[in-house]
Amino acid sequence: MKKTIPIAVKADQMPPRVRATNYPEPFASRMIGREKIPLGDLFELSNFGVNLTRLAPNGMSALRHSHSKQDEFIFVFQGSPTLITDEGRTLLLPGMCAGFKAGNGNGHHLINETSEDVIYLEIGDRTPGDEGHYPDDDLKAMLVDGQWKFVHKDGSPY
Amino acid sequence: MKKTIPIAVKADQMPPRVRATNYPEPFASRMIGREKIPLGDLFELSNFGVNLTRLAPNGMSALRHSHSKQDEFIFVFQGSPTLITDEGRTLLLPGMCAGFKAGNGNGHHLINETSEDVIYLEIGDRTPGDEGHYPDDDLKAMLVDGQWKFVHKDGSPY
Repeated sequence: MKKTIPIAVKADQMPPRVRATNYPEPFASRMIGREKIPLGDLFELSNFGVNLTRLAPNGMSALRHSHSKQDEFIFVFQGSPTLITDEGRTLLLPGMCAGFKAGNGNGHHLINETSEDVIYLEIGDRTPGDEGHYPDDDLKAMLVDGQWKFVHKDGSPY
Repeated sequence: MKKTIPIAVKADQMPPRVRATNYPEPFASRMIGREKIPLGDLFELSNFGVNLTRLAPNGMSALRHSHSKQDEFIFVFQGSPTLITDEGRTLLLPGMCAGFKAGNGNGHHLINETSEDVIYLEIGDRTPGDEGHYPDDDLKAMLVDGQWKFVHKDGSPY
């Protein structure tokens, strides 16, 4: 049966992603406070992804990372996440946004150090050949045929 | 002097785009109620653009159009724009989003038929070779070296 593409949707009423994370352990467990609602995929967009993401208290957006080819952008809707980059810690507020340029090697992630949920919109393109680099963890990610493959920094499998 | 890339910004406090539209007349004048704040460019993102766009009453997002290669996505922050597509009219509310898949030929735009401003976030990728098609107007757009070039449907210049 052909899936119908909606004209428009109420974002926060859409179903969250079933598979919470692609990370191997011990990293997958660190994503337990994160829930992503894929929005771009609902409209069969393929050039970039858009997610409405919720971080519970102590949740994080991802391991701190940078991409070789993917630009990323986030816009905070609710709550006050802390953005960690090579420059240090920046507390964000609703209405604030940040962009993470491909290839600059500046590892970044959001962590929720408050007692309230954080909700933000995240956008990232899907340029082939992208790699993810993780300055704080023994992990390397490679986008192979549209799927993320994770290995140790020395290339050995998890 | 090297331009400094910010870590994060308050989106609605950033400067609007100086050049309001690239359309030739008589289409440029129809964009008078539209103001775009480029956000992705502030962070030197190049794979896609992100704008915070305001439509005054009677304003429109663009001429009704479709892209050959660019996926587009919008998320409504404030107000109630009317989304026009080949399927007709859909009134949107804050918290609603819509995506426009490249290559499907479904012309779309937002118009503000209310007496209050509409504010939304718009995302579109910058895939080379993109073209814009305009079902209701004698216009064709081609992305050449990162710049939009507009001609009549028969290819003659404006």
